[in-house]
Amino acid sequence: MPAPLLLVTSLGPDEEAKWRAALAAAMPDEVIATDLGIDSERAEIRRAVEIAIVANPSPGSIRDLPRLQWVQSLWAGVDAVLADATVPDVPLVRLVDPSLARAMAEAVAAAVLYLHRDLPFYAAQQRRGEWRPHAVRSADRRRITILGMGEMGRASAAVLKAIGFPVQGWNRSGAECDGFPVRSGLEGLRTALAETDILVNLLPLTPTTRGLLNRDVFQRLPPGAGFVNYGRGAHVIDADLLEALGTGAIGHAVLDVFETEPLPENHRFWTTPGVTILPHVAAPTNLVSAAEIVAATVRTYRLTGCIPRGVSRDRGY
Amino acid sequence: MPAPLLLVTSLGPDEEAKWRAALAAAMPDEVIATDLGIDSERAEIRRAVEIAIVANPSPGSIRDLPRLQWVQSLWAGVDAVLADATVPDVPLVRLVDPSLARAMAEAVAAAVLYLHRDLPFYAAQQRRGEWRPHAVRSADRRRITILGMGEMGRASAAVLKAIGFPVQGWNRSGAECDGFPVRSGLEGLRTALAETDILVNLLPLTPTTRGLLNRDVFQRLPPGAGFVNYGRGAHVIDADLLEALGTGAIGHAVLDVFETEPLPENHRFWTTPGVTILPHVAAPTNLVSAAEIVAATVRTYRLTGCIPRGVSRDRGY
Repeated sequence: MPAPLLLVTSLGPDEEAKWRAALAAAMPDEVIATDLGIDSERAEIRRAVEIAIVANPSPGSIRDLPRLQWVQSLWAGVDAVLADATVPDVPLVRLVDPSLARAMAEAVAAAVLYLHRDLPFYAAQQRRGEWRPHAVRSADRRRITILGMGEMGRASAAVLKAIGFPVQGWNRSGAECDGFPVRSGLEGLRTALAETDILVNLLPLTPTTRGLLNRDVFQRLPPGAGFVNYGRGAHVIDADLLEALGTGAIGHAVLDVFETEPLPENHRFWTTPGVTILPHVAAPTNLVSAAEIVAATVRTYRLTGCIPRGVSRDRGY
Repeated sequence: MPAPLLLVTSLGPDEEAKWRAALAAAMPDEVIATDLGIDSERAEIRRAVEIAIVANPSPGSIRDLPRLQWVQSLWAGVDAVLADATVPDVPLVRLVDPSLARAMAEAVAAAVLYLHRDLPFYAAQQRRGEWRPHAVRSADRRRITILGMGEMGRASAAVLKAIGFPVQGWNRSGAECDGFPVRSGLEGLRTALAETDILVNLLPLTPTTRGLLNRDVFQRLPPGAGFVNYGRGAHVIDADLLEALGTGAIGHAVLDVFETEPLPENHRFWTTPGVTILPHVAAPTNLVSAAEIVAATVRTYRLTGCIPRGVSRDRGY
């Protein structure tokens, strides 16, 4: 009888129950415990657990697991788990789900085309009852730069290319990805920004990328550029973005992620012209496919003892 | 010395001058006359003209051209010229421009993704300061039907497929296009509608298609379907669309074309929730590429006497 899997989340009880059911359906042979029940049972489970499956775990909730072999995140972004110093130093495995990458690519295409075809401006005109066509630029003359060329960045680049946009990437290594030119480093970023009509952020949040999207970045874009943030709110210095929107350095921003979520009701983003707010809906984890991916990894571990590769704690992803 | 080309438009003088310059640049050996000047010169030009190049010509403006061989439209849609009974019965050639098809494909992808990703709903939530994520459906579960599978329809279908949407078409012949399933006839339309989450109209306006998008069509869509009109305003019975929006049969409509343009200021579309208004900007004719396409056709005529094939007056396109 293998040790139970421990599911640790800070989701509401309904949401957690859905995850537990999906995981149970994908791994009918496994026992999936949540951190409930009477103290003696809890202690026994915690002593035995080898694998913790986590989704937004509260800080401190993955400690005191003496036999823990690895932590499996149900999210692709693991910045919150890495920021918790009480998490044991075992491999932390992030979810890499091709269906997530496809969802992100759709979200990126939707936001880029929304900006490309001036839909926010036409919405404002409609509210004023104003009929005024703007010149149409073709996609091949709208240059897109994607920050972060992992699974999601590459899937997004492929879809944008199919629509007709010229795409370049920026990542840590600067290695060419799937035929797209990729720059790296601060100098590479500055060069890319000067050639960018719409900037799309898909970076993971790490100590290096936190606050990266600041005044200096926004000012290096051609005036009136578009900005799409599907990374993390903490990549952006909000005051700098508001300033860039005010001066016209940024023409319009589509923001899906925020330093605090839900976005506080008094935040200026809600009412600043030139900001479209989405409630963190770019690429929500797909319950069914995520459970299947986790199940395959657990199965491999049970059969071979092989622990999957975790993220690099230095890089943060 | 070949006979001059006659450029006939109802555009403003600035707009007409731009077209004349673009055509002159593409055909430096041709004389391009507009219908101005003193009467004796006008009469002489009109007697000699073999080719009339038209953009929105006023009714009656292409008569009294005894040597006219063909009429070349600078627009893809020729419904207005066909409706003018005074136009001589010579071939009427519509503009078929691959760059126009690409522009339309971008416009279709923009509107479809805008609806697919609930952007109009999030805009309404933002105005209320409301943070509420909706479930995300993946593109492969959002079925798109394109009415009209000519150059533009096929280019749009290809881009939508690259994004991940299942696409079917509806046209006159029902012949499969580029691997996309295509239905035809009223029965085929009804079958297609029942399988349609977003309906995209790209039909030419003909006596058969006028008023086609009516109550019966809207009611056969699954409740809450999206609707995109990039065809002509007269395809739609406005009162029926307003009713369908009111009952929720249509969840949201993106309208780029209207029976009267600019859309009259008192039209209910301006303020009806669930309507996004665009000022006829889907695929504006590209001056430079259109002039080059017309120039190539004129050159062939000068060299070979070959008159290009016109639209079918029966079919209307």
